[in-house]
Amino acid sequence: MQLGVIGLGRMGLIVVDRLMEAGHNVVAYDLDESTVERVAEAGATPADSVTDLAEKLGEEKRIWLMVPAGKAVDATLADLDPHLGSEDIVVDGGNSHFQRSVERSEATEAAYLDCGTSGGPASAEAGFSLMVGGPQWAYDELVPALDAIATGRAGHDRMGPSGAGHYVKMVHNGVEYALMQTYGEGFELLAEGRYDLDLESVARTWNNGAVIRSWLLELCEEAFREEGVDLGDVDDYVAGGSTGTWTVQEALEQEIALPLIYQALSERFGSRAPDEGRFSRRLANRLRYGFGRHEVARRE
Amino acid sequence: MQLGVIGLGRMGLIVVDRLMEAGHNVVAYDLDESTVERVAEAGATPADSVTDLAEKLGEEKRIWLMVPAGKAVDATLADLDPHLGSEDIVVDGGNSHFQRSVERSEATEAAYLDCGTSGGPASAEAGFSLMVGGPQWAYDELVPALDAIATGRAGHDRMGPSGAGHYVKMVHNGVEYALMQTYGEGFELLAEGRYDLDLESVARTWNNGAVIRSWLLELCEEAFREEGVDLGDVDDYVAGGSTGTWTVQEALEQEIALPLIYQALSERFGSRAPDEGRFSRRLANRLRYGFGRHEVARRE
Amino acid sequence: MQLGVIGLGRMGLIVVDRLMEAGHNVVAYDLDESTVERVAEAGATPADSVTDLAEKLGEEKRIWLMVPAGKAVDATLADLDPHLGSEDIVVDGGNSHFQRSVERSEATEAAYLDCGTSGGPASAEAGFSLMVGGPQWAYDELVPALDAIATGRAGHDRMGPSGAGHYVKMVHNGVEYALMQTYGEGFELLAEGRYDLDLESVARTWNNGAVIRSWLLELCEEAFREEGVDLGDVDDYVAGGSTGTWTVQEALEQEIALPLIYQALSERFGSRAPDEGRFSRRLANRLRYGFGRHEVARRE
Amino acid sequence: MQLGVIGLGRMGLIVVDRLMEAGHNVVAYDLDESTVERVAEAGATPADSVTDLAEKLGEEKRIWLMVPAGKAVDATLADLDPHLGSEDIVVDGGNSHFQRSVERSEATEAAYLDCGTSGGPASAEAGFSLMVGGPQWAYDELVPALDAIATGRAGHDRMGPSGAGHYVKMVHNGVEYALMQTYGEGFELLAEGRYDLDLESVARTWNNGAVIRSWLLELCEEAFREEGVDLGDVDDYVAGGSTGTWTVQEALEQEIALPLIYQALSERFGSRAPDEGRFSRRLANRLRYGFGRHEVARRE
Repeated sequence: MQLGVIGLGRMGLIVVDRLMEAGHNVVAYDLDESTVERVAEAGATPADSVTDLAEKLGEEKRIWLMVPAGKAVDATLADLDPHLGSEDIVVDGGNSHFQRSVERSEATEAAYLDCGTSGGPASAEAGFSLMVGGPQWAYDELVPALDAIATGRAGHDRMGPSGAGHYVKMVHNGVEYALMQTYGEGFELLAEGRYDLDLESVARTWNNGAVIRSWLLELCEEAFREEGVDLGDVDDYVAGGSTGTWTVQEALEQEIALPLIYQALSERFGSRAPDEGRFSRRLANRLRYGFGRHEVARRE
Repeated sequence: MQLGVIGLGRMGLIVVDRLMEAGHNVVAYDLDESTVERVAEAGATPADSVTDLAEKLGEEKRIWLMVPAGKAVDATLADLDPHLGSEDIVVDGGNSHFQRSVERSEATEAAYLDCGTSGGPASAEAGFSLMVGGPQWAYDELVPALDAIATGRAGHDRMGPSGAGHYVKMVHNGVEYALMQTYGEGFELLAEGRYDLDLESVARTWNNGAVIRSWLLELCEEAFREEGVDLGDVDDYVAGGSTGTWTVQEALEQEIALPLIYQALSERFGSRAPDEGRFSRRLANRLRYGFGRHEVARRE
Repeated sequence: MQLGVIGLGRMGLIVVDRLMEAGHNVVAYDLDESTVERVAEAGATPADSVTDLAEKLGEEKRIWLMVPAGKAVDATLADLDPHLGSEDIVVDGGNSHFQRSVERSEATEAAYLDCGTSGGPASAEAGFSLMVGGPQWAYDELVPALDAIATGRAGHDRMGPSGAGHYVKMVHNGVEYALMQTYGEGFELLAEGRYDLDLESVARTWNNGAVIRSWLLELCEEAFREEGVDLGDVDDYVAGGSTGTWTVQEALEQEIALPLIYQALSERFGSRAPDEGRFSRRLANRLRYGFGRHEVARRE
Repeated sequence: MQLGVIGLGRMGLIVVDRLMEAGHNVVAYDLDESTVERVAEAGATPADSVTDLAEKLGEEKRIWLMVPAGKAVDATLADLDPHLGSEDIVVDGGNSHFQRSVERSEATEAAYLDCGTSGGPASAEAGFSLMVGGPQWAYDELVPALDAIATGRAGHDRMGPSGAGHYVKMVHNGVEYALMQTYGEGFELLAEGRYDLDLESVARTWNNGAVIRSWLLELCEEAFREEGVDLGDVDDYVAGGSTGTWTVQEALEQEIALPLIYQALSERFGSRAPDEGRFSRRLANRLRYGFGRHEVARRE
């Protein structure tokens, strides 16, 4: 089938590659012309604007957006809007908030699919996991493309109506934070505990048959192999956090407790504390003097 | 090679099977004679006592214990002790506390290997992950047997000196608790959140290419398939907890914070609260009356 | 001075009483006429509508709202609006969200003070703690009334511009949740730990000289005295939660970790779990079967 | 009555002062002779050894130990032992582990009281809260002295048999950690949140009538007054932790969840992390590269 792909960043390029490898026709557009050219050399039809892309797709347009969540999605949709009708399908493959996706689906005449995409650049070869929300007919229509982008038929499904795809992806990411931090806790105890252990060997042994084996644990093994078992100069600074924050916010609204996911998010915030440290602990330090006349540790 | 296996429970039987399939000779003993007979029919040499097993093994005995952690290990070791010399090797493949393993290794003349075994009965076909602590020569000597019991060469390694195997296994289990609870949190939000989702489909889609794919997530998928996506009559009651407790205790001694693992352990304790509920919450309920005259919820 | 008080619930009545005891003149209004009558008998000037109240106050109106947070505030403000000018002052003494207070302050010509009120009905005699946000001149103007409603001069202050009062009160409540749950944890361990203790005696002994003495601990002592040290039929069900939820939401926005406050809020959510229990634990229960063939606890 | 006091550190001196002010006779001993001399000038009978103190007390000795928990207690008891009989009473007023107190009570012929002492040096004038465990007759015998050392009759009580006093004090300290950290969280959000607040004013306003008023909050107010509302050069480093660790250990043994207290203890451990930061977060940082090719923050 023929698909338009807008956004040729790291993830968008993988989408294009996987579609073309599976024999689909791609019309590609990006703000960066040189990337469009590169993709054209590989066999895609280049477009020099959103309008150009829309025209080249003709009737029954199927368009995959792989642009950064937020304003870029709205800007692209604004450009696309005049060209869209009810027989067209637009997919947002990025990390948009599910409520924004619901609003966008309501604002366009086209069928709008929100598609959570997991696996990251590292999944270029094996394919992604795709969680799709939106009209059934549009999902059905896109199955051949989804088969190509995902790991295969089992790697994608329609989660439910509009928003459900990004909703499931949001929760996926909340879980991801906590899984990462959990492995981190285990390896921290091993690294600083009472034995002198080769953490790469630990990770490899676990990855071969242990209950806790997983892809993230394979990435731990890779990290120890590449950085050394003391993680070298890797800093205690964890960036990101928006999807985890959304997960906690939604759980607050649903009155559901997510203590592990919250704690994992907290560790990120904690890793980004100001230079003088966390105010809460500084106060606790001072309070110990208040009642017990314990010496107050002070910065130099 | 020839191995004695003591303890033919679910895990011990798998050990025997895998050893024999790989062509090793097994002398088998269990308190339950009928199990010994069954194993004998499958090709193992039966022993009718620990002493008998020791005699049948002759010089340079290699003995694998697969008995419940605690008194059963000590009782077996007491029976074995008169038969053991410095050229013999005893492996404890159960979930013993690492400090007990160190003590036991010091109490016997034989080389003592503590072997954390992960994968559980479900790993019968694929093999286990084996984390071994103890003397290098004894580990080297046992490699052919470890190759057979584990998933293969990559599925076992010597973690370090005595105790290191059970230490790594202890931390493995702490991590396991938190991974399970993390997936639980994610699915809880999906189950009770704003979309009506097919959790089996979610789990399957995630298991095919998503960052959070893992064996435990495959078991979630299986659980939803077998129990239904509402988990049917599965109760909010999580048994077990000793290895997770040990992990937290060790981390307290090392002054390392494990908030996610602790929280996962707490959820187990919470699931086993008395019928009248958790005292802490009952007091909070009453305090709200104390200052705000909010109505006190009372049991009938 | 003369004040209008709108809303004669439990808290509003205390406000009226304290104002009149201090010699201030009160014009009182409530939807419930009988309450207005009662207050009139005690010396207040009754009003039979918001308009009536506004007219009776004349120029330079000072009006204290003590109505439930949310729609009731907006409805009252809508009624008041035609009567308000820039020389008038309106105080919202309820638990409104600080952002709503900022919006309301911007929507009215009057000076708008957001006033967090802590102490609850139990503070009728001793007076409240009042955290005020809004224009300095309006705060200064109201000091005599604030002196009367609060514990005295030290019991109120201007926290900052519009919203600051309700902001500080919001955080106060988040702290309150965690303090309550902390005492709860301590008494839970004492109640279920290894000694048979008289918790009322523990609380009383602590309240006399211990580092952790506090008003909430006095309320614990009272609870044990009145309910018995096993808390009798007090249920494991903690209602409420909106201000704690706001606190966590704001902290998410500020990227500040509040693990104790979050946990206290989580315990409330947990106490209100569905009958079949928490999904996360039910899944963990089932997963233990998945890998270890541990028996699955099932509901009858 | 007459009491021997051994240990004239900060707390021991307060005990002596309060006893003498109440008209009791004190025989005092400390390793530091100059402190003994000072106390003698104030009216106490000096002793130049434990034996001397025992002899000066004569029959029916009542001896208060205020020496550091641990070896100092055992060393003092070893010196005292030859002089003790079943009609004598020894009180350990320090922060000993309750199980050590039970063992010590069993090892001596004297009646042994374990006495948790809360309030710290700051309570010199107002008196302490004393939680006593041990034989009823010995407690009764000491009531006049306890009245003097505590805030008065309400400030001490017998919690139960041997160990119960130090048990309740242990839990008290666990609660103390979490209360401190809770106030810390609240003030952290206020300090770094969206308003520019005077935290001293906040604390003072809360201390006058708010639900969360407490002695610890008075100490917060004092801290802001003395250090400035940004806490100046007070470091993010919280020392101590043994009693909190014991509390969590005991709760693990009792299978009771203390998530807030555990978290407070974790913050202390976290504040003492190695220079390169927490391994768990460093691994999470690196894993984000593993799956998403997010840039890895590195130390310089």
